[in-house]
Order: sequence, then C-alpha cells, then structure tokens
Amino acid sequence: MLQSGISLNGTMADPSVLVVAGTHGNEVNAPWLLEQWQQEPSLLQTSDLNVHAVIGNPEARQAGRRYIDRDLNRSFRADLLARQGEDMGPLEVDRARALLAAHGPEGRLPCSVALDLHSTTAAMGSCLVVYGRRPADLALAALVQGALGLPIYLHEADAAQTGFLVESWPCGLVIEVGPVPQGVFDARIVRQTRLALETCFTSLAAVVSGRFRFPHQLVVHRHLNSVDLPRDPDDQPSALLHDELHGSDWRPLDPGQPMFDAWPLGSSGGAKGPSLEGQIPVFINEAAYVEKRIALSLTQREVWSVEPGWGLALQNLLKD
Amino acid sequence: MLQSGISLNGTMADPSVLVVAGTHGNEVNAPWLLEQWQQEPSLLQTSDLNVHAVIGNPEARQAGRRYIDRDLNRSFRADLLARQGEDMGPLEVDRARALLAAHGPEGRLPCSVALDLHSTTAAMGSCLVVYGRRPADLALAALVQGALGLPIYLHEADAAQTGFLVESWPCGLVIEVGPVPQGVFDARIVRQTRLALETCFTSLAAVVSGRFRFPHQLVVHRHLNSVDLPRDPDDQPSALLHDELHGSDWRPLDPGQPMFDAWPLGSSGGAKGPSLEGQIPVFINEAAYVEKRIALSLTQREVWSVEPGWGLALQNLLKD
Repeated sequence: MLQSGISLNGTMADPSVLVVAGTHGNEVNAPWLLEQWQQEPSLLQTSDLNVHAVIGNPEARQAGRRYIDRDLNRSFRADLLARQGEDMGPLEVDRARALLAAHGPEGRLPCSVALDLHSTTAAMGSCLVVYGRRPADLALAALVQGALGLPIYLHEADAAQTGFLVESWPCGLVIEVGPVPQGVFDARIVRQTRLALETCFTSLAAVVSGRFRFPHQLVVHRHLNSVDLPRDPDDQPSALLHDELHGSDWRPLDPGQPMFDAWPLGSSGGAKGPSLEGQIPVFINEAAYVEKRIALSLTQREVWSVEPGWGLALQNLLKD
Repeated sequence: MLQSGISLNGTMADPSVLVVAGTHGNEVNAPWLLEQWQQEPSLLQTSDLNVHAVIGNPEARQAGRRYIDRDLNRSFRADLLARQGEDMGPLEVDRARALLAAHGPEGRLPCSVALDLHSTTAAMGSCLVVYGRRPADLALAALVQGALGLPIYLHEADAAQTGFLVESWPCGLVIEVGPVPQGVFDARIVRQTRLALETCFTSLAAVVSGRFRFPHQLVVHRHLNSVDLPRDPDDQPSALLHDELHGSDWRPLDPGQPMFDAWPLGSSGGAKGPSLEGQIPVFINEAAYVEKRIALSLTQREVWSVEPGWGLALQNLLKD
C-alpha cells in the first residue's frame, strides 16, 4: 500500500544537506552519532549527498542544558534575526545567525535541506516533525514514511511556538526519537536516529536521481492544541497527568478518558478534562515543555493524498 | 519472614525530622509532593513527629538544573563547610551551611533525622540509600525494608563520592525513586515517594513509642565500584551501554554478559567487560552521573543479621 505511486525523472548535481544535532544541548545521542561518524565515515550512508554536519548549540551542550539564553529552536524568527548589532543579544539568536551565515540558503556553504535531530523524554518512538505544509517538506516526509512507516507530527497554527530552525531552510524536517531522559546516552536511540537519517538521505538521493516512488497517501497527525497541567493560584501544578497517559503517545483518547490524576485533589477535582475522544496525544510529559506549559499536545489523524506538486517542488529545490 | 524479631520499649518526646526535597533542582516530584502537603495536611501521615520540610536547593529548582555551582548533595564535606567567610563561595556550600544552621543537630530548630528525597532516571523503583554503617541508619532502613521490602543501596568506601547531605545528621536516609526523566512530573513517582516517606515516619514513631519489631535480616546491596563508558582520546564515550542493561537495575549480571554496545566499534571493540557474573548493577544510565563518569555502579548483595545495637542507637538518638 505504501509503494507505487508517482515517479519523477531528472538529473541534478549533488545537493547539499545540513544535518544539525544538539540544537538542544541536553539531547546527547544525535551529537554522539555525528561525532562517531566523523571518526568512522562508513557509519552513515550519505547516498552521495554533500552532507554538512554541525552541532547546533555547542555552548548549551557543554553546559548540559537545553539552551543558555533562550531555546535555539525557537530563535529562527525574522524579528529576532533582524536585530543586528545589538550588544550581547541572546546567545542563541547569535547562533541562529551564524548557522544561517554558514549553511543557510544564502550562506557560505549553502544547503537546500536541513535535517534537525532531536530526542524527547516522551514515548514518541521515531517520528518526523513537519512545520506547516511546504510541498518540499511533505514530499520528503512522504518518502520517509513510505520507507519506514514513521508517524508524522504536523506542527502548524501554533502562535505560541514559532521560530523553528528548519523553517529557515527551503526544505527541512525534524527527526524526533524517544523516550530517553535528557542527558542520557542510549544506543537504541542512536540507532533509531541513524536509521531515520539515512532514510532521509536515501529519499533525497532518489529524488536527485529521479528514481523515486511516493506512497499513495500521507498520514499526518495534525496539531490541534497543547494542554497544560491545571494550576493553583501560585501557578504551580495542582494535578499531574493521569497514569494511563504515560507512554500513550499516538494512542487515541477513549471516551471520557481522564487527562489528569485525581490525586491529591480527590475525585471531584481536576480529574477529567473535556471529552476529547479520538484526539491523539503526543509529546506526553516532554521534560523541556514544562516551562512552555505543555503537558501534552493533541492532534488529529488525517490521511492526505500525495500531490504531484510536492515531488516537483523538492526536485526543483535540489536542482538549484 | 520479615516480621518478628527484636522489640524495644521506651518513651520519648516527639523527635524532629527534617525532610528535604529538591536537593537537586531538576528532580521535581518530591518538591511537588511537599508543596501539595503544605496546602493539604492530610496528604501525609506524619505519625505525630515534628516534621520540618524544606526545599534543598531553591535556586537550582528555579533554574530547572541539578545545581548552580556544584552538587549540593556532595557539598556537606567538612573541608568545604569549614571555609567560612570566603567571598562568593559556591552557592551550594552556602546552602549546606544554611540548612545546617536551621535544622542541623546544633541548628535553631534541630532535627535528629534527615530524610532526603530524590528521583533518578534509572529504573531503580523505590529504594533507600544508606551511607556507611551507622547503627541508627541501619535500624531505620531495616524497619522500612521490613514494612515495604524496598532494596537498600549501601554506599560506602567511595572516595570519589563524598559530602552527602544526610551524613551531616545523626541519622539519615535517601529515598530514591525512578525511573523518571529530570524535570518530568509523574504522579506514580509522587505516590511512591509518599509511601516510602510515610513508612519512614511510621517506623520512627514506632521506635519513639517502643512498639517496633525488626525483621530478622537486613538485605543490602553494597557498593563495589562504579563503571564509566569507554572513552576515546578526546575523552568522549567510544561505546554506550549495552541495550540489555537498560532498565536492568538490581538484576545480577549473567556470565559474560556484555556491558557495552559493540556498535559502532564492531564486535571486537569494547563489547565485553571483565567477567562480573553475579554483581548487581544499579543507577544504570542515571543522567546526572554522566558528568561524574558513572554509567552504572556495581554492588554485591549481602544478608546481614539485625543487631540489637542498631535499635538502641536510634532509640537513644530520638530521645535527645
């Protein structure tokens, strides 16, 4: 069912792909993979692409923290990037500028595609995150989903979450793998990251060579909204997520399934949210989202037809 | 089997017990429990003890980090505490002094027992950590193990790890609960913490009232040594822990069981450690120990007879 479909032909020069690991300094497995690869080039099959691998936020990595001044993966906002010449701006905005100057579409070693490698404390497995509906992104996501069956979280229409790294490149995806606590090395997470990354390379190379076939359909989990824990007057959580939700990423909510734990407030307090039957939670209990007031995000599963324009968009991009 | 045993009688005034949560700022569940308890006193049964609850490291908690300058739970070292009057010493050493001034044995509101609540990213379940072999600590640990069956990690003879908080009180235990990523709220972890804490209170109150019975035996997992990941010349990990070890805390190693993952170095490199058959790993992949170069610690299971002196030591202490 995932095979057959549209095939496009063409020949192009090898395109350049940016791979970023450690955009968040406490996500340690993808940086470890890239550094092992640097020492042992056979570790990653790059399918003859020109791959530029960088550590997103070396200072935060050194400090073992997600970021120093602000989340780098929310710092690729036009308004922030435009404020040139400010004294001692946030470290991460400077870093965003530096990454764009080096490998942005107009950079010194320009890349047309950015792959940003992340990990999560949530039980997300391996998945792709797509920001908005750019045809080239959807093309790449469809090819990877066709090859590996990975779920796709379509992040859009969330005014509270903007400025993602990959949006500053003409095509870009996040590869997100979990569960793994922040700061913990885990060979399984490394392997999953490697497989998804190599499949991105294979897919891009297939588009370059013109020998690729889309699946008939693209399944996305479209972002609806995020849910915070209930808060008391001091702004502290007054209830936690219900036990049943732990590790239940991608599983549709049952009718009346409680979202929050009744304890310690008792069964009458905060135990149930509104009926969200069929909505699908993701990023349940992601540690880094506590400060963003996100206990989980809700999505809706949608099945889209793969449009011919997607492949053309990616093909044209890789030609440049 | 765990019931019967020694019983001691006596009457004493209600002793004061210090409960510390958030000694590490990114361990969020125990502080949440104590704050909920502050709002709802019925949440914790304190068995008529005078319980003083404090947040160990409020600054680190605010920052969402384990510590600011240095690990508070390695800062209760006589040499560090003695350096009074230094300008701008490490924040945590100042905090250690402040905690002792408030609730140390000679403090303004002195406590004879300290219970320090921690969480871990390792799959340790609920357990107690005992530092050395002070009779009063062993008495309390034996009573809690007798009630709940919790495993006990006996930490001793580790020159690289000293200055633990509870060592500065005449009696003190760490309650360690996991797995939970740093910064993640988890109602299950809160409940386990509460149960272990209440059982400590029950046990102490039983000693105060003289109506307590020890189990016949105390089972401890005695610390042998800690194991780091193999390192390359740049001091980066050259291999990660073997998949089979993940979540295998408390499970004795099989003969020849590989400690490290052969990938990416190939099966000949770093796949096996020395034969450690029967040794029992704990704190496998604890995130906070990466910087301490501890991928896991190895222990030996020992069964000790409960000695009459233990109960007397704790009883005398609680009389003061």
